[in-house]
Amino acid sequence: MGFTLGSVLMRLGMTGPDEVSVDAITLFVLLLSACIIIGHLLEKSRWLTESVSALLIGLCCGVVILLRTQGKSSHILVFNEGLFFIYLLPPIIFNAGFQMKKKHFFQNFSTIILFGAVGTLISFIIITLGSLQLFKKLDIGFLEIGDYLALGAILSATDSVCTLQVLNQEETPLLYSLVFGEGVVNDATSVVLFNAIQRFDLSHITSTIALQFIGNFLYLFFTSTVLGIGVGLLSAYIIRKLYFGRKLASDTICNAPTESPSHMTCTSKGLVNDTSEAPLEPCKEHSTDREVALMILMAYLSYMMAELFYLSGILTVFFCGIVMSHYTWHNVTECSRVTTKHAFATLSFISEIFIFLYVGMDALDIEKWTVVSKSPGTSVGVSLILLALVLIGRAAFIFPLSFISNLTKKSQNDKIGFKQQVTIWWAGLMRGAVSVALAYNQFARSGHTQLLGNAIMITSTITVVLFTSVVGGLLTKPLVRFLLPLQKHSGRTMMSDFSSQKSLNLPLLIGQESEVAIGCTNIPQVPSLRMLLTTPTNTVHHYWRKFDDAVMRPVFGGRGFVPYAPGSPPELVVQ
Amino acid sequence: MGFTLGSVLMRLGMTGPDEVSVDAITLFVLLLSACIIIGHLLEKSRWLTESVSALLIGLCCGVVILLRTQGKSSHILVFNEGLFFIYLLPPIIFNAGFQMKKKHFFQNFSTIILFGAVGTLISFIIITLGSLQLFKKLDIGFLEIGDYLALGAILSATDSVCTLQVLNQEETPLLYSLVFGEGVVNDATSVVLFNAIQRFDLSHITSTIALQFIGNFLYLFFTSTVLGIGVGLLSAYIIRKLYFGRKLASDTICNAPTESPSHMTCTSKGLVNDTSEAPLEPCKEHSTDREVALMILMAYLSYMMAELFYLSGILTVFFCGIVMSHYTWHNVTECSRVTTKHAFATLSFISEIFIFLYVGMDALDIEKWTVVSKSPGTSVGVSLILLALVLIGRAAFIFPLSFISNLTKKSQNDKIGFKQQVTIWWAGLMRGAVSVALAYNQFARSGHTQLLGNAIMITSTITVVLFTSVVGGLLTKPLVRFLLPLQKHSGRTMMSDFSSQKSLNLPLLIGQESEVAIGCTNIPQVPSLRMLLTTPTNTVHHYWRKFDDAVMRPVFGGRGFVPYAPGSPPELVVQ
Repeated sequence: MGFTLGSVLMRLGMTGPDEVSVDAITLFVLLLSACIIIGHLLEKSRWLTESVSALLIGLCCGVVILLRTQGKSSHILVFNEGLFFIYLLPPIIFNAGFQMKKKHFFQNFSTIILFGAVGTLISFIIITLGSLQLFKKLDIGFLEIGDYLALGAILSATDSVCTLQVLNQEETPLLYSLVFGEGVVNDATSVVLFNAIQRFDLSHITSTIALQFIGNFLYLFFTSTVLGIGVGLLSAYIIRKLYFGRKLASDTICNAPTESPSHMTCTSKGLVNDTSEAPLEPCKEHSTDREVALMILMAYLSYMMAELFYLSGILTVFFCGIVMSHYTWHNVTECSRVTTKHAFATLSFISEIFIFLYVGMDALDIEKWTVVSKSPGTSVGVSLILLALVLIGRAAFIFPLSFISNLTKKSQNDKIGFKQQVTIWWAGLMRGAVSVALAYNQFARSGHTQLLGNAIMITSTITVVLFTSVVGGLLTKPLVRFLLPLQKHSGRTMMSDFSSQKSLNLPLLIGQESEVAIGCTNIPQVPSLRMLLTTPTNTVHHYWRKFDDAVMRPVFGGRGFVPYAPGSPPELVVQ
Repeated sequence: MGFTLGSVLMRLGMTGPDEVSVDAITLFVLLLSACIIIGHLLEKSRWLTESVSALLIGLCCGVVILLRTQGKSSHILVFNEGLFFIYLLPPIIFNAGFQMKKKHFFQNFSTIILFGAVGTLISFIIITLGSLQLFKKLDIGFLEIGDYLALGAILSATDSVCTLQVLNQEETPLLYSLVFGEGVVNDATSVVLFNAIQRFDLSHITSTIALQFIGNFLYLFFTSTVLGIGVGLLSAYIIRKLYFGRKLASDTICNAPTESPSHMTCTSKGLVNDTSEAPLEPCKEHSTDREVALMILMAYLSYMMAELFYLSGILTVFFCGIVMSHYTWHNVTECSRVTTKHAFATLSFISEIFIFLYVGMDALDIEKWTVVSKSPGTSVGVSLILLALVLIGRAAFIFPLSFISNLTKKSQNDKIGFKQQVTIWWAGLMRGAVSVALAYNQFARSGHTQLLGNAIMITSTITVVLFTSVVGGLLTKPLVRFLLPLQKHSGRTMMSDFSSQKSLNLPLLIGQESEVAIGCTNIPQVPSLRMLLTTPTNTVHHYWRKFDDAVMRPVFGGRGFVPYAPGSPPELVVQ
């Protein structure tokens, strides 16, 4: 076995650029497992996040391979952005939509859209114009105007994944929902922007082209969203129609993995638990696998259909996730619910770790650095400029837009304080895998990075990603504790939010419940115009709920009306 | 949108042989969803199984594409046996091991091994020798001796997946466990046999080479099993060590998909259910994703490591599944258990449907049929001969080996009756995706099938697979009802099995429980030699349990000792 292992290690570096070998997959799976285990062991250390440790493991592994192959290669898989966009990104974005706190998201909807769409545009413009001006003085290779625009889009994509690992949902719920919501919308905006840039010939911009560009952007945004919602609703409808009539006939218990074959996973037998845990909910034999499979396939279908029609798959699959969690998820059995919830999170988790591991490993790719090393000063200069532009670009929209957002809020508690603004600014600085993938897409399209300009752009992007991930990952938690030491503060903000909204919604809610109880007769409870003006979101939310209850839920399913359960979080009822 | 859809449909046929395009993936995902929905709608019809309907949908789709492309191509993805062996087969085999009724399997262990290993060898020899003799009279191209041996291995691989869909676990538990167990061992035997054939130069067989061949076969079988068990135990150990100490500290509830971000899937909040269902078990925040991810990755790692060391991944991952369900599964949280159980079943389910869909679509691949159509008579003759050999080869081991197996059984109820033997013979006739994948591996290695002999072998294999799947899928259920109309009969066999074993094991079990209760002092309860001789399996099982409880479970975890719960199935306690 000894010599076999040796030959395996020898083979690792020899893998050609195109073939994905058994060796590479094995090593990668091994490293992924190692990352998860190490990530768990480091959980108590509040400094290192899972992403950063995966990055560092990737870097170490890259160094080892680099040494073993005498500097020929640092990676075992060549970054294939097809792999990234077709297999790794969809589960992450879908899961983001699926697991999202919809109520928080829609409560802060205007602020999130302001940050995520308008803010990303501001950041994009500043990075593009800044690099256009500043790079003239540096001796980098020729870059087209499209390259600068792409650079703006690439570096405007914040890394919502990494960000989530440093903010705590319980401690700072408002910040959390703002940064998370912004991150998702921002991802979509950057990718849509990037696609729009690649599709247009932007070497000579006229006002017509600029208008077309904006039109295209809006068209992409709208159609992608509609497609995602459509596929999500279709999945809800299909699963409801297929299983609805039979749900009550189920009297089987699902559990005990060893007791059933491939397709008969829910047997009609009970279960002896090894702890004093209660047995699980009843669920229908065989239907769980079908339901879960259908949900996975239709979610993926929404992404691929968007790509097929040249739309933004990322937006589509995000909205598909939201719709699926609002309707489809409530139409399936209890077993399917637990399974989908955790299976989607696990797939997303593996994809994330995979990406960070790869980025770490790929950062050392020798080809690019050889080209760049001829002009180290330039490269360092470009990286510093880009880093500065990222910092400025984010500051340039967080503070003004927070000011605007605060103008619309009446209550002092709803406003975003200065310290919170600083935290939002800092927490969203991290750049991640989306940036790297887009950079490869733009600057390594021929598969090689031997042009100086392209090589510098890629290495600088990687530098920015590594720097912001590591520094941001290490410093954000201490910063949050330093800036917001009264963790009750933002908590109070949220709670007062709840209570103010509850006092507003509770009668409406009760009205709705009684409506259902007495058979949907319309009790006149139309809010006044003044109410609409002062609390627009809540009232829009109210109309949406009325529409949802009257039209959507009877067709597509969804959570039923349950009496308020003591101890349950209010958003589950109010949502 | 109309013209876009048209151009999409146009593009479908144009896909080159090597590239996997967005179009192809989209269509495939769409077809998979359709198969699941149609499979569900056909569930009540006891004639069509999911596999057969996927096959037929694939065939129909192949016809449509064939017509659209004016006969140029019938598939949207070229059969890539790398895809099959690296991505599709591992989940199916792992899930078979993971979901297996271990008690049934080990209770009928000798019979299953007899059928699965010895029987497959008999079938292999008969098909090889038969085709060697009969093909001489037909004008087919030149085939080496290795090709005939490969053919024997290819057509000895029964399709356990398809088989399971026609036998009912509740109605005929003994048949079910025999056919399923045999199918799994048979899969492994065929693949190991096939690999051994491909690795040896068998053009001139000497006794030395034959001995080497047998030695190689045994070596592969043994090392692959050990590797699978090793990785499974490692996963149990790691998860136990990582999470054991913290399990009791968990006070969070997991559920409600929409309420947490990617990594914080178990929030500390309760849940308002839409039905009167009890809330789920508590489980540790974040740990579920990690546990599930680790289990998936380590299962896959075992398969890839086996492939890396040129062992049989299929055997390795099967035993890894068994060990994981026996130890690892009991070390994780309740949420992880439900998730892994259904996620693995779902992955396996999707892989199966994918394979059948593909086989149906690929059956029409025009290239092979063009070559074959020059000698249609020969092709039909070869298919008929192979079909007959499959029937004879299976009969040649089922009836003699059942006779041998019956000799070792004392009780009349434990014996396999003649009608049951006929059912086992018939239910195991189906050939499936493993056969097709192996046939491609052997006869289409250059990527083309223009040699007459190779083309005939592939088309004949496909014919046998289609014929046995469709006919077997349609007729097995009626046959079982016709041959075994007293469905209680075999049920009674199983129940008497239980009671006879319970009467034997119950005092031992109680002894073991009290051992644990009083701290593992050794109560002298060694079974007598006579007992060992008359009921060897049960006593081996008893020693294994002692070893398991004393050595294995303290290290690797596993099910704890629970008092016998009324209403729970006895195998859960006795197992």
